[in-house]
Amino acid sequence: MAGKILVTGNSVRPELLQPLTEAGYKVENPTDLLSEQDLAAALEDADAYLFGGDEYASGTAIAKAKDLKVVAFLGVGYESFMDATAITSRGVRITNTPGTLTDSVAEFTIAQLLAARRQLVNYANRYRRGERGFEVKQTDVRGHPIGIVGLGAIGTRIAEILAVGLRAEVKYFSRTRKPRVEQALTLEYMELSDLASQVEALIIMVPGNETTHGLIDHSVLSRCNPGTLLVNTARPDIVDRQALDQALEDDLVSVAAFDGFYEEGEGDSLISKYSDDRLIVTGHIASLTSDARDGMAIKAVGSILNILQSGTDQYIVNG
Amino acid sequence: MAGKILVTGNSVRPELLQPLTEAGYKVENPTDLLSEQDLAAALEDADAYLFGGDEYASGTAIAKAKDLKVVAFLGVGYESFMDATAITSRGVRITNTPGTLTDSVAEFTIAQLLAARRQLVNYANRYRRGERGFEVKQTDVRGHPIGIVGLGAIGTRIAEILAVGLRAEVKYFSRTRKPRVEQALTLEYMELSDLASQVEALIIMVPGNETTHGLIDHSVLSRCNPGTLLVNTARPDIVDRQALDQALEDDLVSVAAFDGFYEEGEGDSLISKYSDDRLIVTGHIASLTSDARDGMAIKAVGSILNILQSGTDQYIVNG
Repeated sequence: MAGKILVTGNSVRPELLQPLTEAGYKVENPTDLLSEQDLAAALEDADAYLFGGDEYASGTAIAKAKDLKVVAFLGVGYESFMDATAITSRGVRITNTPGTLTDSVAEFTIAQLLAARRQLVNYANRYRRGERGFEVKQTDVRGHPIGIVGLGAIGTRIAEILAVGLRAEVKYFSRTRKPRVEQALTLEYMELSDLASQVEALIIMVPGNETTHGLIDHSVLSRCNPGTLLVNTARPDIVDRQALDQALEDDLVSVAAFDGFYEEGEGDSLISKYSDDRLIVTGHIASLTSDARDGMAIKAVGSILNILQSGTDQYIVNG
Repeated sequence: MAGKILVTGNSVRPELLQPLTEAGYKVENPTDLLSEQDLAAALEDADAYLFGGDEYASGTAIAKAKDLKVVAFLGVGYESFMDATAITSRGVRITNTPGTLTDSVAEFTIAQLLAARRQLVNYANRYRRGERGFEVKQTDVRGHPIGIVGLGAIGTRIAEILAVGLRAEVKYFSRTRKPRVEQALTLEYMELSDLASQVEALIIMVPGNETTHGLIDHSVLSRCNPGTLLVNTARPDIVDRQALDQALEDDLVSVAAFDGFYEEGEGDSLISKYSDDRLIVTGHIASLTSDARDGMAIKAVGSILNILQSGTDQYIVNG
């Protein structure tokens, strides 16, 4: 008997779990949010755990999971969803699904950039309110300097759409310079504060961690030319909240677009201060496509089968 | 003495008129809307007329314009702004400025497409209202079939951004097939109703005239698969209003994005029937960038100088 696989959450389409049942496993997919106690019970006889919900996998929750060999996390940033130390100390592998969000997030970032550039949200809302008329304050993207902070997989894809498709003049800053991407896409490398001073739009796409927290601060934003667009579809607090407020007030940043925002309360005061022609915020939806979700599920299912069948997989993150 | 040039409207930056003053002409630029009488007076001693305002140039207005050699229209569709027959019968050349809007309109169309695809307007407004949470109903553009109706300069540029930048699978219908563009961008040609049935988004980019009026009617929209996006940044009435209403009601069209809409009243009823997750309308702003406006002004100024100095120009539209 092959055993049981626990799948949590409701975002994995049943068809994508077929390889698991075909391999002889019994798949259990409770879609409601699991309490620590329910999770512990569900894991007790599980060989694998596809983490697709909003639960927290504590040390207690996995303490009795005697058959568990792998926790396959749906997404990249698993750390805040589980006690990785406790899981690792039990010899359980953790995997994640990098790369599956690349197009989804890159395309959404371009959507935010173009919407900010052309005042799409504001004009759509104005039309609904019966307001007509306009001002020529907008510019094309083609031939104009756009800056990207961070040239990982998503940043590179954003650069490609901008350089090859929209024919912008793309400049970037990255902790490590990327000469090959630079050459292939004709990008120009510059230091962060120089970048801020030489572009009409600044796109933030670095991972959220201690070194990037507040990376875009007053010293960076004060270098922007009046009317610069700021697009942050990465973690909100990479941009210092007070520096953002100041730059919006001084009109150095004319429009800011965020996907996900500061903690409630803190964020709310900026939302009420700046209207939809200055600040566009969406609720962390950049990776929210069926393509990205399916890609993650396919990858997680593959990792589970690899580990159960051969003990190893390329997406193991804990050693 | 070289004479006078009348420039109307307020969208031409003074710097761009310098070639005219440098050639010795006196430039007069009243920025307020001119009455027929005021226009007649201003044209009486004008050698050229750069039409950049919202006035109407009637036969009466030009009747006493004895020195007038050229009316340079800022834009493409001059017909509804002047009595072209009266102007032509006086031996006055009319020019327009094709091609200058290409990038501006193409980029705005991509903005509308991505906004519709990712529910950007709706999610931005929901965030402002304090509503969180989301559903996975969105998809990437990469690898998905997108259709373009009309492959003129703007349609071709849209196809290029989609195919080369966003890596969509681009299909098109056009009155005349374009084998060279087709091959260069790897597009697939199909008949209009087939196109509607085989794409996830339909982009309308044909000129507005009698043959395209109502081109996208019930017979086309009824072929759409449920959930198709419709993006019309061309003239609104290329899409039959009742067919649109029906397709939205049946959810064959899940989201429609228009730039410019049906006549007041007619349009208003659709606006109140469908909210911002189904219908996004902006007020004819696709060509509203300084790049496009500057490009037009530079072209119009060039045409005026050509005609005044040599009697001819490549942008003459009346013979």
